[in-house]
Amino acid sequence: MKTEKPIFLFSDFGNADLYVGQVKAVLARCAPEALVIDLLHEAPAFNVGASAHLLAAMLGQVPPASIVLAVVDPGVGGGRRPVAVLADDRWLVGPDNGLLSVAVARAAGARVFPVAWRPPRASVSFDGRDLFAPVAAMLARGELGAGDMEEAAGLDVCFGAEDLAEIIYVDHYGNAATGLRAQALPCNARLVVNGRSIGYARVFADVPRGEVFWYGNSVGLAEIAANSTSAARKLDLATGQRVAIGR
Amino acid sequence: MKTEKPIFLFSDFGNADLYVGQVKAVLARCAPEALVIDLLHEAPAFNVGASAHLLAAMLGQVPPASIVLAVVDPGVGGGRRPVAVLADDRWLVGPDNGLLSVAVARAAGARVFPVAWRPPRASVSFDGRDLFAPVAAMLARGELGAGDMEEAAGLDVCFGAEDLAEIIYVDHYGNAATGLRAQALPCNARLVVNGRSIGYARVFADVPRGEVFWYGNSVGLAEIAANSTSAARKLDLATGQRVAIGR
Amino acid sequence: MKTEKPIFLFSDFGNADLYVGQVKAVLARCAPEALVIDLLHEAPAFNVGASAHLLAAMLGQVPPASIVLAVVDPGVGGGRRPVAVLADDRWLVGPDNGLLSVAVARAAGARVFPVAWRPPRASVSFDGRDLFAPVAAMLARGELGAGDMEEAAGLDVCFGAEDLAEIIYVDHYGNAATGLRAQALPCNARLVVNGRSIGYARVFADVPRGEVFWYGNSVGLAEIAANSTSAARKLDLATGQRVAIGR
Repeated sequence: MKTEKPIFLFSDFGNADLYVGQVKAVLARCAPEALVIDLLHEAPAFNVGASAHLLAAMLGQVPPASIVLAVVDPGVGGGRRPVAVLADDRWLVGPDNGLLSVAVARAAGARVFPVAWRPPRASVSFDGRDLFAPVAAMLARGELGAGDMEEAAGLDVCFGAEDLAEIIYVDHYGNAATGLRAQALPCNARLVVNGRSIGYARVFADVPRGEVFWYGNSVGLAEIAANSTSAARKLDLATGQRVAIGR
Repeated sequence: MKTEKPIFLFSDFGNADLYVGQVKAVLARCAPEALVIDLLHEAPAFNVGASAHLLAAMLGQVPPASIVLAVVDPGVGGGRRPVAVLADDRWLVGPDNGLLSVAVARAAGARVFPVAWRPPRASVSFDGRDLFAPVAAMLARGELGAGDMEEAAGLDVCFGAEDLAEIIYVDHYGNAATGLRAQALPCNARLVVNGRSIGYARVFADVPRGEVFWYGNSVGLAEIAANSTSAARKLDLATGQRVAIGR
Repeated sequence: MKTEKPIFLFSDFGNADLYVGQVKAVLARCAPEALVIDLLHEAPAFNVGASAHLLAAMLGQVPPASIVLAVVDPGVGGGRRPVAVLADDRWLVGPDNGLLSVAVARAAGARVFPVAWRPPRASVSFDGRDLFAPVAAMLARGELGAGDMEEAAGLDVCFGAEDLAEIIYVDHYGNAATGLRAQALPCNARLVVNGRSIGYARVFADVPRGEVFWYGNSVGLAEIAANSTSAARKLDLATGQRVAIGR
């Protein structure tokens, strides 16, 4: 049995960029026994809102008693505070800029702890490596816990628990996930985006090759897809586009 | 010594997509001691044939007594069955849609076991996470083995052991691997693709800068390359193009 | 405590390519207990000079007593020799083509050991997998050390310790790192590239949205960036462009 909790990384760093490796170098030094897993990088860059909804949707896939290190942080170096949140038995560590707030708003229970710890030396631009990674490592090792930090009433920036009627993520197949939770949509609902109205199908294999449809994706979001081709290219879809619900 | 076997991932998921992280989250929960290695993602999307040849070629690099979790599965949610194959001391787990079949046809010995286990809860679109990953974890831990499953006569979909005279993979240098095994080609063979005839060289350093040639690549396939530049861009090469063998 | 040292990978392999997975398959077999971390892939392809400066800058982030497996090796199959370097308590393994030379020139102390070991079977094109990975594993396990190899007077190819006045890396946000160390530049220095003169700011949050500036990045290099947008796209920046220092 591992004595250190697993650490999941969620960021808008590029997979090819030099950031993820440096974060892992810190974790290797500070929590060498912890399993470190890339949950998602290349979350919508500079887009805290879309990223917050994506993180909230993916969080159900993260095992309890894990640490999530979340960095989508265009305001790094500015005034936003670092924060650790205990949400339903998972620790989330990241900037208090709204990124964690959808997950917090949807959690059965959440406690918010501003992070007082500061690194002895830090760059001005890379809190992910210099501040959040060491804190995640301390949480993973159990060297830091709820009893060691002062609790705050809540987050500074809250986006709320409601859905986001936008495209929040396009994957490399060209599937476009929205910030709408599928469970709340009736099967006869149509999604309207870029002037196109899209009907529901349960699964790719249920529609003809090339046809566009929406379905409940693997993290519970309504996603616009096409059988064996790219829905994003067919309909010119991109993160940030508004999605309306029709009949 | 690790008590759990290593698990190698082979898929057409995007490296940047949200799929790989979710598969790893399941493996972290179900086989926390197993080494998990990304053998290849972004295998040709929706292209089971090219992917099957790529997997067969790469399999020689996977240590014996490992598990390979293979997912190129455009028909997910349809009728194809999940299958575990014991091929020359390695377990392959994936859809019975042809993906494993080239490796099976080329193995000295292979036994095919349809997977009867079903997850208590599953999405309709992500068997990689919900079904194949837990099965791979059980195999890695030794909780599941050949004695626990009913053996089938063979795979439903078989592409056979023969080479595929197509470009099956283009890497980021612009090298274009074919489905032709280099060992079977004489050195004076020329590869003809897109109207261009290409001669052999042993290695990059043997041709002038910028010159296009073919050679036996590191997994035994004939690959079209250029010294210090992109052969794919020079010759407009893409996965799926037919390759003829000339003199 | 792990008994095998961590191994950091630095290469110009594509993150999506089939190379990294094969290197890790070898490490899994030869050093199964070692932590393997992708420090950086997609270093400037075919560009040993830019890669050497990037490696030197990133090396400070690698914990002491680690192994760095570095492969940017357009001359593979030619005459350059493989080499292991002990630089300030870190082992670097790679081709003696200049890649390691900037790090070596800047180290307080460095010892150079040509690698005499050769694999029983090797491809002609993939020393990263066949030669450097096994050697890195031996170093990680302590089966190979300074006492086991003959020391050379120095590297064959040396780029020296001086800065490189070029763009050496563009990340996915569109930030363009130069080979100039920021510490040596006064804050009133301007960087001139592509006919544009760029002033300094301490951090992203200090400039208006969309404005281009340079700053000292997280690995100590002067980097051209823009607040919440892509500096590379705004100024048409690419690896290899010359950068002049103005006032």
